[in-house]
Order: sequence, then C-alpha cells, then structure tokens
Amino acid sequence: MGVVASAPAKIILFGEHFVVYGEPAIVLAIDKRAYAKAELRNDKKLFIRSSNLNIAGIFENGNFKVEEGNPKEAKMRLEPLKCAAEKVLEISGEKVGLNIEVSSTVPVAAGLGSSAAVASAVAASVGALLNVKMTKEDVFRIAFEAEKIMHGTPSGVDPAISTFGGTLLFQMDTGFKPLDVKVDIPLVIGNTGVERLTRVQVSKVRSVRDKHPQIFEAILRTAREIVLRAIEALIEGDLETLGELMNFNHALLYGLSVSDESLEWLINSARKAGALGAKLTGAGGGGCMIALTDKDKLEKVLEAVQRSGGNAFIARKTDEGVRVEPS
Amino acid sequence: MGVVASAPAKIILFGEHFVVYGEPAIVLAIDKRAYAKAELRNDKKLFIRSSNLNIAGIFENGNFKVEEGNPKEAKMRLEPLKCAAEKVLEISGEKVGLNIEVSSTVPVAAGLGSSAAVASAVAASVGALLNVKMTKEDVFRIAFEAEKIMHGTPSGVDPAISTFGGTLLFQMDTGFKPLDVKVDIPLVIGNTGVERLTRVQVSKVRSVRDKHPQIFEAILRTAREIVLRAIEALIEGDLETLGELMNFNHALLYGLSVSDESLEWLINSARKAGALGAKLTGAGGGGCMIALTDKDKLEKVLEAVQRSGGNAFIARKTDEGVRVEPS
Repeated sequence: MGVVASAPAKIILFGEHFVVYGEPAIVLAIDKRAYAKAELRNDKKLFIRSSNLNIAGIFENGNFKVEEGNPKEAKMRLEPLKCAAEKVLEISGEKVGLNIEVSSTVPVAAGLGSSAAVASAVAASVGALLNVKMTKEDVFRIAFEAEKIMHGTPSGVDPAISTFGGTLLFQMDTGFKPLDVKVDIPLVIGNTGVERLTRVQVSKVRSVRDKHPQIFEAILRTAREIVLRAIEALIEGDLETLGELMNFNHALLYGLSVSDESLEWLINSARKAGALGAKLTGAGGGGCMIALTDKDKLEKVLEAVQRSGGNAFIARKTDEGVRVEPS
Repeated sequence: MGVVASAPAKIILFGEHFVVYGEPAIVLAIDKRAYAKAELRNDKKLFIRSSNLNIAGIFENGNFKVEEGNPKEAKMRLEPLKCAAEKVLEISGEKVGLNIEVSSTVPVAAGLGSSAAVASAVAASVGALLNVKMTKEDVFRIAFEAEKIMHGTPSGVDPAISTFGGTLLFQMDTGFKPLDVKVDIPLVIGNTGVERLTRVQVSKVRSVRDKHPQIFEAILRTAREIVLRAIEALIEGDLETLGELMNFNHALLYGLSVSDESLEWLINSARKAGALGAKLTGAGGGGCMIALTDKDKLEKVLEAVQRSGGNAFIARKTDEGVRVEPS
C-alpha cells in the first residue's frame, strides 16, 4: 500500500523575463496537480516511473538502469526525483527501497512548473510513507535541490509555488512574499504545442538589453509599474483591471520578440471570445498562453482557444500547496 | 492652359498617439504625390474637382453647388481646397475664376496626409498660375489653414511635411525640426482597407492614460527613448536598428489597443517576408501599416503584404516638398 501526495502546477501571471533583471513577478498556483505515489520495496532499489512521459528506471548504488523509454531522457527526467526521494530517505535514516510513480495533470515542459510540482509531491509522499515529520519549508528545500539538478540555476519560484500554493510575489533580491488574494482567478490556459527553448528566449531579451539599454530600462520600468498595479488589483479582486494589465504585460513581451505567431493566434482568439485579458506565460516563443476570463465566459473562451488549435483547459488559483492525499 | 503643382504624402515613422502627450514624433515625406492643376475661367466662379473621389462642385459668392458626387461629402472635402485657393487669390489681389482639378496617388483618408498634400498643391498651383511670389512658409500657412477647416485642431504636421518634404522631428511644445537624413528609406506601405476613426483611437489611448497613469507615464518614456534612438539611427543611416525601433514602437501601440487584427496580419506577413521592422502608422484600428525593408527585399515584402490582403505599394523618403511641375 502506497502513499499519494500532490502539489499544484503554476502559471506566471506577471513579470516573466523582467524578473531576470530584478523586477517583480507574480506567480499563481493552479488547481491542476502533479501526483506522486510512493511505496516500499523488498529490496534497496529505487524504482521511479513517470506515467505521462512513459519513462521508468531503477537507481541502485549510483547506477541507473532504464526500464522504459529513451535511456538518456529517462535519466535526465528521473534523476531530480531520485534526488528528492534520497533527501527524504537521508532525513528518515532508513535504508529501504521505494517504488515511486509520478503523473502530472498539466503538460510537461510547457512552463507550468510540472517538474517542480512532481518533485514536491515525491518529497511529501516519501516523507509520509516513512513517517518523517517535514514542514513545507523542508519540502520546498528538497524540491529546490531537485530543480537545480534539472535547470542549473533556477530562481526557486517553481518549487516555492508548488509547495506553498496561493499567489507569490517574487523578486530576485528579496525572494518570495505571499499575496493575500481572496478573489477567484478563472483562467483558460492554452498550450500552443510549439516547443520552446527557454535559453533562446532569454537571450533574445538580453540582446535587446545590450543593444538598446535606455529603451530596455524604460520597458523594465513599465513592467514594474504593471506588477505594482497588479498587486493592488489582485488584493482588491478587480479582475477587469487585472485583464488590462495582462494585456499591457503581453505587449511588452511581444515587443521583446518573445511571443510568436502560435501564441498570438491563441491570445487573439481568447480576447475575441471575451477574455478580460490574455498573455503568454513563461518563456514564450511557443509554450503556453493564459486568458483571464469572467466565470460565465470560461467555456466560450476555452472553446475559442481550442478551435484555434490550442490544447486548452480551465484552471483556477488554488491556495492548496503540497499535500498528502487521503488514502 | 493650366499650371500643375504637386506635394508629397507622408507617413509617421515614430511617435503617433504619444505626440498628443508631448512626446516627439518623426514624420517622413514619401515619393507619392498629390497633384493640383489650376487654370483660369472666364467667369468669377471657383470650380474644384477631385478625380480620386469623383466629387466636384462650384463655389460662388459663398454658395456651393455640387456637380458630381454626394453633396455633403463634396462640400466637406472641397471646402478646404476652396479656402486654400481663395487665400492665394487674396494675396494676388486678382478677382478671377478658377478651375482646379486635384488627384492623389495615395489612398485618401488613410493617414497618409493626402488632404494636406492636396491643399499644398492647390496653393502652389494657383500661386504659380497667378504669378504670386510665395515662399514655402506661405504655402505651409495656407495648407495649415485649409487643414483646420477639415480637422478642427490639427497638429500642423501634415501640411508641414507635404510642403517642406524630407524628415521632420515634431513635438507639441517646440514644433518642427528638419532631420538631416541622407540614407534612402525603402518602405512598403500597406492599407488594410479597414476604415478607422481617429477620434475613437485617440480616446482609447486617453482612457489608458486616465485609468493607469503610472503605467502610461512609463510607456511614454519608452516611446521617447525609441524616438531619441531613432534620430541617431536615421542620421547614421542604420536601417537595421531603425527596423527594430519600429517594432518596439509598434508593440507600445499594440499595448494601447490601437492596433487591430487587420494591421497585425499585414505587419506579421511583412516581418515574415524579411522586413527589417514594421508598424502601424497613424491612428491605427485599421488604416495603414509600414514596413522598412532592405532594397533587395522590397518586392518580396510587397508581395507578402498584398497576398495577405493589403492594398500595398512601395514608397521611399523624398526630400522634394511642394513644387510646381514643369509644363
């Protein structure tokens, strides 16, 4: 009998790319979760399987043996989860084998934080299985370590939001600050299906900064003003203003050439269907868009984005961070 | 035997909308001209005909009699030209009748300054016919008066550029300043064919200013930095940078919701065909877009914009302002 834990995926509501240059960003946990089920094995091996990616493998004494899928991809994807599980095993002091199965209800590698959510869920499920007392801070730190294996020098936003849930204001200098957002945030999330390379997108922005420093500085200031106003709108529950601010934010990203036709297409269709505002979320150049939508227009906007070729779903803000599911 | 004069149409290269709030704009005369032919009549009447609009009428003792086209439209369009002709008649001191025929090689009412160009051409042709010595400043003042009849409180940019030609930096406070631009500016101009209401577009921007003053201030600053950098790029002849700046400028306009799908469609197709940069020009919400293009890609970008449904043509900067054509 295993223990299941889950953690939410996320979207960046405001400030992607600008966050790299010290500006604030707002990140939201959404009610689409990643799950991890952990159970004991009779041996000392660590078996991990991702049912979304159809990859699986066994870690034993520092070696990896693929059981399913492409060996290189399997190792790359499963290694961070092994790291998370081992950290918890260390804390517990136990030397046991584990079967871990993970799944995500959001698209993987689409900027929705599924890898961090899976890592948080693994840490929590293994912790619960072994009766280790862990705070959310502990889970966060473990998920952050796992994220570093995958992404080198991540900001820590993804493990933080998937662990704590809710809405976080993030800034490079000052770190995370939870925002007290009472209002429901109904969203349509559309995946263009176009694969993006975060690195390429980040370097596009950097080249604008290098070539046009004064203009870039003015754009950064605009981005900052948008986030400052968005904090107010979120706390006031003013969705209409929030939508306008998302449109402004998107225009800046569009100006930095990190949007693309596939995103513009979905964003336009969402706006035409009555969304309060829409923008790309994450690195851009493909990946996902989000549309903020009055509750009664969610279905209409969803359909519009789907008809335009987006792989789309409805999502809402969730305040539920990582949790152990009732067995 | 009549006298023909001509004056250039214009495009706004940078700064439309922001100019209303005191920011600088850059306007360019293009090698597409409006023509006016003036000849003496045997009576004291003033007959004016526009061959583009298929409207014509006679002014006599303060009365208007339509000869061709919708009476209301004919009066509205021809009245400013009557005003321009009468100003020159006043200066000449002569009491003669005139036949005036005007035509424009650019789309009318598309933000390309055809009405000001026609007014400048009328003033110059009537002046030459009656042997009135007029400086360009005189022609400008007359065309400006004519423009006021048509537009209420125009900025004076259109009569200035159609009279003086070349490239002008314009700012509300300080007026016009010619820029010494040596480089050829090869453009594709695409007309969406979507009718726009300048008033509506201007009020969209105003409502952003009213609702989000800090964000708007940051956008204005960005617009200013773009124009300052563009002045350098124009003088240096750096078309590549100029194209990038046009894209930035367009993104701000897009953010203020003054672009529309018809414009985005043409702008995207121009960029994809290899334009150095593209933006809406003028009020937006339909109307025209412009694409800056390396000489050897002009035909390709032209075709792309045409294939996307734009009524498109190639244009270049001209330094030739209003002139009397050789007979």
